[in-house]
Amino acid sequence: MIDKTLEDLFHETLKDIYYAERKILKSLPKMARGAQDQKLKQAFEKHRDETEGQIERLHQVFEIIGKRPRAKTCPAIDGIVEEGEEILEEFKGNPALDAGLLAAAQAIEHYEISRYGTLRTWAQQLGLKDAVTLLEQTLAEESKTDADLTKLAESAVNTAAKKKAA
Amino acid sequence: MIDKTLEDLFHETLKDIYYAERKILKSLPKMARGAQDQKLKQAFEKHRDETEGQIERLHQVFEIIGKRPRAKTCPAIDGIVEEGEEILEEFKGNPALDAGLLAAAQAIEHYEISRYGTLRTWAQQLGLKDAVTLLEQTLAEESKTDADLTKLAESAVNTAAKKKAA
Repeated sequence: MIDKTLEDLFHETLKDIYYAERKILKSLPKMARGAQDQKLKQAFEKHRDETEGQIERLHQVFEIIGKRPRAKTCPAIDGIVEEGEEILEEFKGNPALDAGLLAAAQAIEHYEISRYGTLRTWAQQLGLKDAVTLLEQTLAEESKTDADLTKLAESAVNTAAKKKAA
Repeated sequence: MIDKTLEDLFHETLKDIYYAERKILKSLPKMARGAQDQKLKQAFEKHRDETEGQIERLHQVFEIIGKRPRAKTCPAIDGIVEEGEEILEEFKGNPALDAGLLAAAQAIEHYEISRYGTLRTWAQQLGLKDAVTLLEQTLAEESKTDADLTKLAESAVNTAAKKKAA
């Protein structure tokens, strides 16, 4: 048996988040179309554009470790995105739709934050300095997106859902 | 068509995290058995015990909204746990196993953090004060667990994986 090392784990997890990012890239326009609140729509559109840049950074990290960019099916993001799409169907035309979409987007963000946090730590331990820089850039973007979504959640979107529900 | 409200969304998401917690409760002992590092083993065992208390709090939140505790299949946690179990199989006996388990546990924590954060915000907006208190208690525990896992990730576990890989 060949020992699997931290390098292998790094490579596997890179393929996992590469799959996840491409899945998210496809999902965000659907969420943007579904969102009723303009600010939420814009937040999804902005994150879609950011996601393209994040995929480009992943290409660079693959290059750093001398591998071709390849995706590996990630059941976690499949499940998270599936839940978001259920919300889109089940709450279509309902006042609480935006609150549900926001929650789905935050679940996506948190998955990404955990994966990029892990990859950054491993890149540090493997001495891949340039990869650390790239992964930290994305991690900072994801954390900011999550914070922005929290602000939206605490203000207009949910208040609107509550008012219409009252 | 009956309008689905924030109350409905809160109830649906409560069933989702209830399913997730019960799934995590079953998964943590497997992860504890698989872990090589004693501190990591203990962290999983401690979190297993905490999870029991978190499920009990969910029972109380169901009671507050006048519903019976029921679970709703959550594809997101199914996917996240599946990835953890893949790591257990693929990296069994390998130096990087613990680093992989740690990463899987952090993905679980982040899913929970996003769900409890969402539920707490909605409970506030719905004026469910006692539910807010319960959800915040769990949210604080999950955040602490994640921080503890980060500390472990940055110290012994990954260093060991790297050394053996060198």
